[in-house]
Amino acid sequence: MLTVKTSSEAEKIIADTFGEIRTGTEEVTLASSVGRILAVDIVATEDVPGFNRSTVDGYAVKAADTFGCSDSIPAILDFVGEVLMGESPKFEIGKDQCAYVPTGGELPQGADAMVMLEFSEDYGDGTRALLKPSAPGQHVTFVGDDVKRGAEVLKAGTCLAARHIGALAAMGYSSVSVYKKLKVAVISTGDELVDVTESPVGAQVRDINSYEICAALEKLGCDCTSFGIVKDELPLLESKVKEAVDNFDMLIVSGGSSVGVKDATFKVYDKLGEVLFHGIAIKPGKPTICASIEGKPCFGLPGHPLAAFYIFNLFVKPLILTMSGASKEMVLKKRLPVTLSIPSNHGREECVGVRIIDRDGREYAEPVYTKSGLISTLSAIDGFVRIGRDVEGIGGGEEVEVELF
Amino acid sequence: MLTVKTSSEAEKIIADTFGEIRTGTEEVTLASSVGRILAVDIVATEDVPGFNRSTVDGYAVKAADTFGCSDSIPAILDFVGEVLMGESPKFEIGKDQCAYVPTGGELPQGADAMVMLEFSEDYGDGTRALLKPSAPGQHVTFVGDDVKRGAEVLKAGTCLAARHIGALAAMGYSSVSVYKKLKVAVISTGDELVDVTESPVGAQVRDINSYEICAALEKLGCDCTSFGIVKDELPLLESKVKEAVDNFDMLIVSGGSSVGVKDATFKVYDKLGEVLFHGIAIKPGKPTICASIEGKPCFGLPGHPLAAFYIFNLFVKPLILTMSGASKEMVLKKRLPVTLSIPSNHGREECVGVRIIDRDGREYAEPVYTKSGLISTLSAIDGFVRIGRDVEGIGGGEEVEVELF
Repeated sequence: MLTVKTSSEAEKIIADTFGEIRTGTEEVTLASSVGRILAVDIVATEDVPGFNRSTVDGYAVKAADTFGCSDSIPAILDFVGEVLMGESPKFEIGKDQCAYVPTGGELPQGADAMVMLEFSEDYGDGTRALLKPSAPGQHVTFVGDDVKRGAEVLKAGTCLAARHIGALAAMGYSSVSVYKKLKVAVISTGDELVDVTESPVGAQVRDINSYEICAALEKLGCDCTSFGIVKDELPLLESKVKEAVDNFDMLIVSGGSSVGVKDATFKVYDKLGEVLFHGIAIKPGKPTICASIEGKPCFGLPGHPLAAFYIFNLFVKPLILTMSGASKEMVLKKRLPVTLSIPSNHGREECVGVRIIDRDGREYAEPVYTKSGLISTLSAIDGFVRIGRDVEGIGGGEEVEVELF
Repeated sequence: MLTVKTSSEAEKIIADTFGEIRTGTEEVTLASSVGRILAVDIVATEDVPGFNRSTVDGYAVKAADTFGCSDSIPAILDFVGEVLMGESPKFEIGKDQCAYVPTGGELPQGADAMVMLEFSEDYGDGTRALLKPSAPGQHVTFVGDDVKRGAEVLKAGTCLAARHIGALAAMGYSSVSVYKKLKVAVISTGDELVDVTESPVGAQVRDINSYEICAALEKLGCDCTSFGIVKDELPLLESKVKEAVDNFDMLIVSGGSSVGVKDATFKVYDKLGEVLFHGIAIKPGKPTICASIEGKPCFGLPGHPLAAFYIFNLFVKPLILTMSGASKEMVLKKRLPVTLSIPSNHGREECVGVRIIDRDGREYAEPVYTKSGLISTLSAIDGFVRIGRDVEGIGGGEEVEVELF
């Protein structure tokens, strides 16, 4: 019989045993990279912009030629040409010369500033009158002003969102190296379970966990396969666990609520590999198992769907992020005041579901208490608060850290 | 020439014109429903639990038979049977009788409470000694305690996450009615643009917007098709806009930065439909167009990728959520103190990109200022702060609402 671990002991065991495992990497097109985890640091391979670019429609000038000019004493410069979008100017700007450049266009050699179109007049004699001086560099983005060649732009571990994909496009990355999706197998065990497509008879209950856990895995970017319900028979469960370990990176079994089932997962894990811990001192979720089979992480979650979901979020999700190469920042947290006090949990760590509510434009975390409520809780909560075992309850109005689902 | 609108005027025009449009609905399997928007209110079709269920391993009793019992004066009850997981008991509990029920098992008729196994002794004579009294209802979840038949469990507009899918599975929904994915066409225009698979020559620049906008649309659950780069020629752009309007629910054109391009989008929209506004008084992003062509929303975003991204988030995203049937709560916001003061914007509404940083375990919003920085900004910011045109700047430490990407 293994002793129950505290949650920090359990976290350490998981991190120490599996923390170095990473899925392999693969190259994907930029268009299909959203939500994927970057596998390499991205360094600028060129200066951006690659040319001195105007940020306004107007005239490229040598700034010194405009100093002191005004409405009443304009600077009269020779107009020497027009730069077209997307084309490099074939001429230079000399002293007392100017050229038209549109927003985003390239400044001709010799020019170091722009004067906006609205501060100019065209006298029709081949000159332009500029009515406002410009400082060197004004309205111009110089080569490398945005990013210098060699600068680190994105770090490995970034979950690629629209803005990162924009930055990669700007630097000419048409494909990008990302971590492969973690392949996870999910099994629900328990003789009393029936699939959602069937109607429970008598005291049978529906399999909730395989749907819930698969949905959570999908959101985390995993490639998830549900084995569905496996009856609580050792040889059957053993063969399914073997199949999962052979073909996947991780296995998540959630037990039915019978004692027999918990035993079955433990027995199979113990036979095929090494059980690292069996039990975490946390409420709800005590009957949690973690094992290593052929070096792969295998979890046994509680049968109760809410307990399974908390344990998944607390102990499995961080490992999934690590193995997927993601930075921990992907776990979304908010610090919010609680609306109601949360009573002391008498020396045992506890997860309390909370709903985020709005009061006068401010967000609050409202603890959701239901009597053994499963559906009523799942449909109401936005996340949960973790109350340490040394914490003597939380007063109303006090701030807590809410981990969002 | 249309006058420039304030952002609230623009929001109102968009909502008034397109706010009633919804994509159709479709039925999808529960396993493929994650991230989809629920199209109907979900009402419990049955009581949950469907039977009186024990929450512990122990003995089902009539609570009154245990009143007053203790270690020294146990209640001695006749043992009449064992309930198996998933099976309805075939017997009843009479006065001074008890039966074994596992966690999750069904209480026999006549029983109204459970006594935990650890507070019992088996004398081996067909009786059980109970050492602790139980109150009526103790360790029991009665029929409908979680959800009563007919109760509303989930509202239409909910973006289905793991916990909602768990609740649906618990109620026996093997499929669910969701809104169809919004079909959006994306076009980048501009003679100076080249695709990311090509190398820019001279003052050409890469098309960033179609990748960035498509990634943002994908994250919002849209079915997005990129038309890629369309050259700034009226007949060509017109035929592409027609094709998009005929086959999609929404069109997003983002212009290159040349004046010609802005004109082209406006001219095509004006010819094929009604331009609702041309220009929003917001920085960056003034040259924004919104038109209705065959009743479908068609946007013209600025060419600058950062401006396009802000405008997309501010004006297009809310409409996408509305048309997709989603509740507005899907827009993720955080109230955070700023690390640095943000100077007054002189009477013009402004978006300022911020990075979320951690200081001593608290989150702060740090304004990101770069000189016309595109890549450097896109790769650094987590969201943006919207500074109203009447706001005289924001002081360091003041709280702001950050809209996260």
